[in-house]
Amino acid sequence: MRILASELVNAAKASPDTEIEALGWVHRIRDMGGVNFVILRDRSGVMQLVLNEKPDLNLETVVRVKGFPALNEKAPGGAEIRVSSLEVLSRAGADLPFQVNADVSKIGLEAILDNRSLSLRNPKIRSIFKVQSTIIEAFSAYLRGKDFTEIKSSKLVNSATEGGAGLFEVEYFDRKLCLAQSPQAYKQTMVAAGLERVFEVAPAYRAEKHDTPRHLNEYVSLDIEMGFIESEIDLIELERGLLAYIFEQVALKNSEDLAAWNAAVPTAQAVAASPIVSYDEAMQIANDESARNSAGKGKPARLFDINPEAERLICEWSAREKGSDLVFVNEFPRRYRPFYTYPKGTAGTMSFDALFRGLEITTGGRRQDNYEELRDILPRFGLKAENLEGYLSIFKYGCPPHGGFAIGCERLTQKILGLANVKEASLFPRDRKRVEP
Amino acid sequence: MRILASELVNAAKASPDTEIEALGWVHRIRDMGGVNFVILRDRSGVMQLVLNEKPDLNLETVVRVKGFPALNEKAPGGAEIRVSSLEVLSRAGADLPFQVNADVSKIGLEAILDNRSLSLRNPKIRSIFKVQSTIIEAFSAYLRGKDFTEIKSSKLVNSATEGGAGLFEVEYFDRKLCLAQSPQAYKQTMVAAGLERVFEVAPAYRAEKHDTPRHLNEYVSLDIEMGFIESEIDLIELERGLLAYIFEQVALKNSEDLAAWNAAVPTAQAVAASPIVSYDEAMQIANDESARNSAGKGKPARLFDINPEAERLICEWSAREKGSDLVFVNEFPRRYRPFYTYPKGTAGTMSFDALFRGLEITTGGRRQDNYEELRDILPRFGLKAENLEGYLSIFKYGCPPHGGFAIGCERLTQKILGLANVKEASLFPRDRKRVEP
Repeated sequence: MRILASELVNAAKASPDTEIEALGWVHRIRDMGGVNFVILRDRSGVMQLVLNEKPDLNLETVVRVKGFPALNEKAPGGAEIRVSSLEVLSRAGADLPFQVNADVSKIGLEAILDNRSLSLRNPKIRSIFKVQSTIIEAFSAYLRGKDFTEIKSSKLVNSATEGGAGLFEVEYFDRKLCLAQSPQAYKQTMVAAGLERVFEVAPAYRAEKHDTPRHLNEYVSLDIEMGFIESEIDLIELERGLLAYIFEQVALKNSEDLAAWNAAVPTAQAVAASPIVSYDEAMQIANDESARNSAGKGKPARLFDINPEAERLICEWSAREKGSDLVFVNEFPRRYRPFYTYPKGTAGTMSFDALFRGLEITTGGRRQDNYEELRDILPRFGLKAENLEGYLSIFKYGCPPHGGFAIGCERLTQKILGLANVKEASLFPRDRKRVEP
Repeated sequence: MRILASELVNAAKASPDTEIEALGWVHRIRDMGGVNFVILRDRSGVMQLVLNEKPDLNLETVVRVKGFPALNEKAPGGAEIRVSSLEVLSRAGADLPFQVNADVSKIGLEAILDNRSLSLRNPKIRSIFKVQSTIIEAFSAYLRGKDFTEIKSSKLVNSATEGGAGLFEVEYFDRKLCLAQSPQAYKQTMVAAGLERVFEVAPAYRAEKHDTPRHLNEYVSLDIEMGFIESEIDLIELERGLLAYIFEQVALKNSEDLAAWNAAVPTAQAVAASPIVSYDEAMQIANDESARNSAGKGKPARLFDINPEAERLICEWSAREKGSDLVFVNEFPRRYRPFYTYPKGTAGTMSFDALFRGLEITTGGRRQDNYEELRDILPRFGLKAENLEGYLSIFKYGCPPHGGFAIGCERLTQKILGLANVKEASLFPRDRKRVEP
């Protein structure tokens, strides 16, 4: 019977006389004065093998061994296997582009991404995606618990609806479609259709030419839409509860993965204490922070909108003054938001961003649900009703007040673990240059 | 406080003197000799409102009402709301393209798909996607319980790898990529990378021109890949357990939805009894069934491969002879399977299809994991190693024996509920003609 590395110590305690099987990759080989040790790695961790003869093995070769489990407090996990037979299942080439069992910081990002089938064998790199898997699981579980229905919408959309900028075109039989930037119209359709509360986990696409540590051209969007809300504050409260749950689950299920990155998730108390500041207040905070940081070092740089530097400064303020790595900025000016954003006052909107550890991870807001008001505002945004008939039809036959938001899955992963670049949090990232593997 | 339709009877029992709020869509309006009834629909069901005056309402208008809950055994669910105030939140146009509260079979498929924000308000149509949401949840939960990690891979792939046929091209900055037909190479990478067991829920694309009740050009693929297997039998056993769990969860959570379609899921016993027949046996069964059906009606049509008619006949046999709606066909001939399929004997492969109620819902199999054998076989499939270096590199540095399969989410939904067309099981289906909404 196969025993995982994580099960070995219990097997050694319970039945040391029962032959077991282990399967995995050769992680390290050691010759200690006539005793031959192999460290074998499987999906659960590593275990020590003790062999009678020097084995003919390369690092990373896949083997099956049989033997007897034995306690040994010097072995990783406190047990080892005394091997009686060893079979090579798949021999690794000797020309490894880098050493899997070495320090991750020695492997450059390009080599990590070029060689995913090797780099993910490094436990620290693999831990990123174990955390990401928990994020997706917790996101879905929390929302199902709140009566949300999971949906799957099309990623192939008519370009006329979304406007052409920032879209990738697809040759679809004899016409052109585009890859969806977000499932927003579909989420709204589902709310209007009476599901009231929906979520989707799916890829989203942005044909933007930036090459920064915070952008991906293809990313996983964790999307939500909810009916019968009053304002963006309902959405912020939902996101607080959701993030607190995700953080709690990551702390519970990924403690080793967090430790590998020397990372910690915010407590539920810190999430509950996350401040909500208006756009105008946020700009003031950013400029005050900037002045504070440059005190005695010359004139501070003046910030005019919430750019990446302002996001960093607002989070710096929130962490220091409110004890929260998370901060919500609401009431964005009309000019910064799309036509469908619900107005607030003369020039504001019921929309918000969530900033986490210096990075925007969410944009959301209440949507306009009135057919006439939507149609009337289109010209101010240079849009024509005849190109948006499909979208407008959502509001024709009774649509409740509603809104939603999206969390960038890779950005959340990045900021939980403190990764330098969002590409580290994507298994197969796409940017202007990288299209493989 | 808002009360859902499903909560009304308990509210009426527990606190009939507490004013409650209800939100929803006007489902029916009735004037019964001076008493005005409105049936209000929310995400949980319908409830009866009793009004003092004849309301000025169109069907499907969204309203907020306040009032007191009262038991009434003649009302749906056994309770009603005696309304004290009513507010219109969003007035529906009077020109509904069809009546939401009518018999679904009166609404044609095109009208259903053209008007998703209306058609999904029909409880029977909505039930399709409540079942689908459970399928996705159960798929993920079962696999997590078996130590599988959820992954998200890129849908933008280099066309040279997959070969051009059946692929949609994407204009990706200054080059062309394609929409992935499946995440297979990525799943295999993850197994080789030591995750051993992975799953993915994501869209997949086929640029095929057929327009049939069983095909979609964009569908949701429930994908699995697993290391350290011996043969396709391990995968079939995994799929049996997985499907039994999905069916159990649908029976548990969607009993009303199943009832709406007069549908039932197979029992765990029936799934366990699902036969495994080889390709050659399956062809014999199909031709025997064909002969049986045409007995006394002339010469039976001779079947030469497992086409849709053969799938139907093999399932007919399985249901009658084995008491199972599910049947596995394994050992497909080499010529019908892709180059990476693991061989079995001289002309067979370790691959299989799962047929369910007359339709193929899964293709899977063990993959070739030996670098040299893979490279050597490419010319027989008209492929060149230099175009597949990325794929071949998965096997260079130690790759365990492995395999996997994919379940078509819409097809499984279709067959659970007995839908005539797979497009009914897609919120926003894409085919040659349909690209909206």
